[in-house]
Amino acid sequence: MNKENVLAFLREHPDFLAEHADELGVRLRDEKVRSFAQAQVAASQLKIEKMASQLRTMLADSEANRTTMLRQLALDVQLLGANTAGQLIHALYRSLQEDFGLQQFVLKIAVKPKNKARIPDEAAVSGNTKVSAEIVGLKKPLLGNKISKEMQALLPDDCNTVAESFLQLPIPIGGGTGAVLLAADADVNRFAEGLATESVEYMAAAVGAALSRIMGYR
Amino acid sequence: MNKENVLAFLREHPDFLAEHADELGVRLRDEKVRSFAQAQVAASQLKIEKMASQLRTMLADSEANRTTMLRQLALDVQLLGANTAGQLIHALYRSLQEDFGLQQFVLKIAVKPKNKARIPDEAAVSGNTKVSAEIVGLKKPLLGNKISKEMQALLPDDCNTVAESFLQLPIPIGGGTGAVLLAADADVNRFAEGLATESVEYMAAAVGAALSRIMGYR
Repeated sequence: MNKENVLAFLREHPDFLAEHADELGVRLRDEKVRSFAQAQVAASQLKIEKMASQLRTMLADSEANRTTMLRQLALDVQLLGANTAGQLIHALYRSLQEDFGLQQFVLKIAVKPKNKARIPDEAAVSGNTKVSAEIVGLKKPLLGNKISKEMQALLPDDCNTVAESFLQLPIPIGGGTGAVLLAADADVNRFAEGLATESVEYMAAAVGAALSRIMGYR
Repeated sequence: MNKENVLAFLREHPDFLAEHADELGVRLRDEKVRSFAQAQVAASQLKIEKMASQLRTMLADSEANRTTMLRQLALDVQLLGANTAGQLIHALYRSLQEDFGLQQFVLKIAVKPKNKARIPDEAAVSGNTKVSAEIVGLKKPLLGNKISKEMQALLPDDCNTVAESFLQLPIPIGGGTGAVLLAADADVNRFAEGLATESVEYMAAAVGAALSRIMGYR
């Protein structure tokens, strides 16, 4: 018996090695076994990469939320120190510009004080019946590219940029909306319709609480 | 040539099948290959479980921080509405009890108002020179089980529990510490030494800004 004969025999009897696999210490066509293990490895690695990516997104979101809240807490401390509407507006505008990075914004107050508090002329619109009615009628924050001509006219002029998105944030004074914080941005996504309004609502509540106190509303 | 002969030949030539493995479509002793793949799978799964556990911890931490910040933002809105020291203390105590879940706490004011603001008798300690000096000397939040007899005596009596940990939080009024918020807890870990003081510092800044305004400090 020589090697050629054995090889020839084995080729002619393809099941022979399978039948005697155990006693000969061989495994046949184990590609399926190995490729299953390899598929498991690949699936696991895919899962790890997916989780790592989700983790990065969640961390970035969480960090962004934290930053916004810290800005609001810092603004609150400034508002807490304000005795007059003028001081409040000064603190608010500084924070909007330096901390929140806004360029075009304005606070307009549509209701009259119940005490002798002075509202700076540039913030008072209670004389303009049409605009006042629109402000008082705002019940929740509006974001997007739609704004009435009258509201847009309240914003400060910015000849260098074209406003592409707007925030119209109602400010509660006493029991209802008494003022509006308007902001505009050249970036259409800055105040895109459908964005979460949670963080601007914290701002509205804080500015409203301070204005209510200053203007003698309870 | 019969099967017995072939088997005998193969047993006598252990390397024969290895030499012709490819042409015969067999693999020999692939246990090592498979166990490597299995080890990779096991390592991947361990990595996934570790990441999932880290993810859960980070989410829980992030959620706890968020909850604390939301409580502070809600307290800020209450403080923003306060016109008097009495209103401020009322808003603060309600929040400490209902939102922050504290039972034993007190605010003590060591400095005199610069205006005609009235400080409720139960909050004023400016007449007690020794205690006032200790309050004004507090420069950062103290946590742990150590507190002076004089400071502990300021806390309201609670016959039902033994205080095991204390918070001594300096409140800025004007340029320096002007008041202290004291809190005690039966849980030794509630105000454990070494805990992060970031969130109580937000509270100190907010309460201090409101008190400074009400008491005529700038």
